[in-house]
Formats: sequence, structure tokens, C-alpha cells
Amino acid sequence: MHSLVAEIVCVGDEILMGRTLDTNSNWLSKRLYQIGAKIRRITVVGDELQEISSVISEVCSRKTNWLIITGGLGPTYDDKTLQGLALAAGRSLRFDEEAMKMVNESIRRRGLVYKGDEQSIYEGRKKMATIPEGSRPLPNPVGTAPAVLIKIQETNVVSLPGVPEEMRAIFDSSVLTLLSSSEVNVRSVDVVVYGIPEAAMAGMISELVEKYPDIYIKSHPAGHEKVSKVVVQFTGREKYAEKVDEAVSLFRDWLDKRKASYELVV
Amino acid sequence: MHSLVAEIVCVGDEILMGRTLDTNSNWLSKRLYQIGAKIRRITVVGDELQEISSVISEVCSRKTNWLIITGGLGPTYDDKTLQGLALAAGRSLRFDEEAMKMVNESIRRRGLVYKGDEQSIYEGRKKMATIPEGSRPLPNPVGTAPAVLIKIQETNVVSLPGVPEEMRAIFDSSVLTLLSSSEVNVRSVDVVVYGIPEAAMAGMISELVEKYPDIYIKSHPAGHEKVSKVVVQFTGREKYAEKVDEAVSLFRDWLDKRKASYELVV
Repeated sequence: MHSLVAEIVCVGDEILMGRTLDTNSNWLSKRLYQIGAKIRRITVVGDELQEISSVISEVCSRKTNWLIITGGLGPTYDDKTLQGLALAAGRSLRFDEEAMKMVNESIRRRGLVYKGDEQSIYEGRKKMATIPEGSRPLPNPVGTAPAVLIKIQETNVVSLPGVPEEMRAIFDSSVLTLLSSSEVNVRSVDVVVYGIPEAAMAGMISELVEKYPDIYIKSHPAGHEKVSKVVVQFTGREKYAEKVDEAVSLFRDWLDKRKASYELVV
Repeated sequence: MHSLVAEIVCVGDEILMGRTLDTNSNWLSKRLYQIGAKIRRITVVGDELQEISSVISEVCSRKTNWLIITGGLGPTYDDKTLQGLALAAGRSLRFDEEAMKMVNESIRRRGLVYKGDEQSIYEGRKKMATIPEGSRPLPNPVGTAPAVLIKIQETNVVSLPGVPEEMRAIFDSSVLTLLSSSEVNVRSVDVVVYGIPEAAMAGMISELVEKYPDIYIKSHPAGHEKVSKVVVQFTGREKYAEKVDEAVSLFRDWLDKRKASYELVV
């Protein structure tokens, strides 16, 4: 059903320690799904060079089309994503003039004034502009660290900052365009069923799944107050839109026979 | 620093499609961190048998001590975690009387009444009680599907339901006790620094990291309104509590010299 396979890797000890709830991968999943990509895996790793490099190599060895990485692009010693990326790509890190221009412009634009150790600040900026050979910096419209685009084997790898506003801004301003050649639309209908538990619909749903191999059909339990509530999702690419409607209609017939109460959300 | 290494695997297409925000792994990370475990990775995979089985095998091949899986234990065709677990363990699935007793007791206890296809409902219950050979069911105090405990090579694997209340209840009632032999306490101090950006503290923090190898020291940017706000975390196991306090005290001296404003959160 999907031609474009993507994976997401989030880098950050703070996620593994439970300090930070990762919302980036949820946001990215939605965006990628909307343009018709299938997400195969989401992986969170800590700020360890070897671990970052290993997970990137694993994703590329699965011949993933796009890998989106978030986190670990900051100015400090524990931000190691670009080192890990260089190691996985078998390239060196090099200071990039274009990236440094992006860093300086961003600081000027936002009128930031720093106090503290001048040398540390300069080192931090230089670090953010030191990127793997053969990679390309992407501008960060709201923060300082540029994103980085690099191809490793067959995989296009984009490394985004972990700060959600920066990650989102760069994705929408740069990455979506890069992905847009593979853009497809989907048709999605939810049938919300009250009073019939998921297990009692399993037989019927299995039949529909078999009958419509191009359509994604799945039940999601959505609570159980007085009566059970189950959302049954029907999703297909635009070219299968009629099939989606046909499957929904068969399912509604089945529900009507059982005098079930339900509503459609398109 | 850590003796107990854990990983988390979340199973569910709904997470990969961005329909559901995974909060389970954040909750589990906190709990595991509190008892002194180091989380190496969190991986989300879809409801695909081969993918579930592969990720479990990968975790075990890393000699992880504990693997906590969430999701995919329900009654329907697309809940495939136990199949994947059996495949990774090289075992068959078998109907388990004790698990079936747990399923039936849970339905009786909650006074659930189902309408719908009787046969489907029975099949669903039987499925939830069909677990890998050599595994042990763990009671679910709030839902229907029992959890499952199995050892694969050197890894203790616990498979929990994806519904957060059920996952939490089983973890606290059964899994914590299993883990308790490795229980340790930690001392953690946060220094919240205002007006000094992360980059300007990087040099000092690097020195502290080198000086105190047993202490986890990390800066977390926490916003930038009028002045920057950075949380610097100092965490160590109970036996290193004095070292934690010593490192915090050195850091405060450094801040005081710069007339920085900060507060301590213990």
C-alpha cells in the first residue's frame, strides 16, 4: 500500500529517563502519514555516540527511504547527533561556512544577547556549524542550530533539533518540500460504534480486511463507560477512495442488522 | 553507573500513524529510572508479526536485562504481540488454563455484559489466554488481558497491555516486585539557572562531568523568555549522594562568582 517507508529516531537521555515526554515523533508520524508515508519504526536512544551511530546504521540497512532524526544538535558536549551521523556515514565532520552563516544570522535576527564565557559561546556556535562531509545545512527559522540533510546509502537522512517549535518549523519549511515528490492523499473514515465490544466485531472486521487488501481497516477501543465505545478506522490512498466507502458501507449494513448505534467521522 | 539495563518496546500501528501519543514509555521510563535502571532504547513497531519478533530478538541479542513490551495483547486478529514473542523465543503458543481463569475472573469481577457474536467473544477470550510455552501469566487488576512473563536467553521479558491504566496497574502490582531485587535509590538535585545560556556553562559542566564520573550531570534548556532558563541536573545512586552534593556545591560557587541567579530543586 505504501511506497515511501520512513523511520524516526529521537536522541536524548531526558526521554529515556522519563524527564521529557516525546511529542516530536507523534507530530512527525501524523505529518508523514498524511503525505502517504508508512512509518516502520520509531526509536529513542540516549546521548551516546556509539548508540546514535548504531541506530542510524540499522535504519539505513533496512533500506528505509527517509530517516528523520530529532534532538542532539545543540551547542554542548552532550549533543552528539552530528558525530553519530558522521560515524554512520563513514565521513568526517567539517566546519561549514553556510551553516555558520545560518547560526550567526539566526542570533542576529532574534537579537539575542548572551552573558557568560565568550569562548564557550563561540565554541558552541562553531560546533553547531560543524557538520558531516557531503551533508547540507537547512535553515532553522525559529532557533539557532541548523538542520542537516545527508544521504547514506539509499536513505535520505534529515537531522532536526529536539526543541518542538524548531523541529516543526524546519520540517514544514524545508523537509516537506523535499518529500513532496512522493506526496499522496488518503481517504479516511472512522465509524464510532457504541455498545458492541471490539471482540464481537473481530470476525466481521477480519472478513473486511481480507476482502479489501488495499485498505487499512482497524478497530481502536476508545473507552468503556456505560457502554463500550470502539472506533473502526478505514483508510486508503486517494485512488482507493471508492473501496474505502464500499467497505464502510458493508460494515454499516452489518451494524444496522444488529441495531447498533454508531456515527461516522470523515 | 547502572547495573540493570532495560529496554521498552511499544507495539501499535496507531502510534506509528500518529493517532495515539505514546505515554506508556514515558511512564515506564520514570518508574524504571527511579529504581536505578538504565533505559537503553525505546522502540515503537507496528502490528506486524515479523517486525515484532525481530525487535524482540534484537533487544535480547543486546543482552538487555529487562524488556518491557506494551500493546498488542487484545482479543482481535491484529493483536500479535504474543505470537511475535513466541516466534522470538522459538516456542509454540499454547492455551493456558491459569491465564483463562484470569480472563474469566476479570470479566466476572467487572460485571461486564457483552452483546454481539457469542463465538467471536469466546474466541477472543481464548486468544488472550493462549501464551508462549514456558511463559507465565500475570493478573490484570483492571482489564481483561493478562500480562505475560517469559525469559529469552538472558533477558526477562514482560508483555503488558497497551491501555495505560492496565499497563500501570500490572507494572505496579506484579513487575515492580520482580524487579525489586535490583532496587536502588537515587539522589537528584536540579539547579535552575536564569540568564546564563547553556553554551556559556558548557565548559564548567564538562569539567564536573570529568571530575565526577559516577554522577549523571546534564543541562536541559528550559525556555528563553526575557532571560534564558537552564536546568542543570545532578543525579547519582544513594551511595554517591555526597558526591552529588559536592558537585552541586562546586557548581554553585561558579554561579556565585558570576552573580548568577538560580534556585535549587531537590
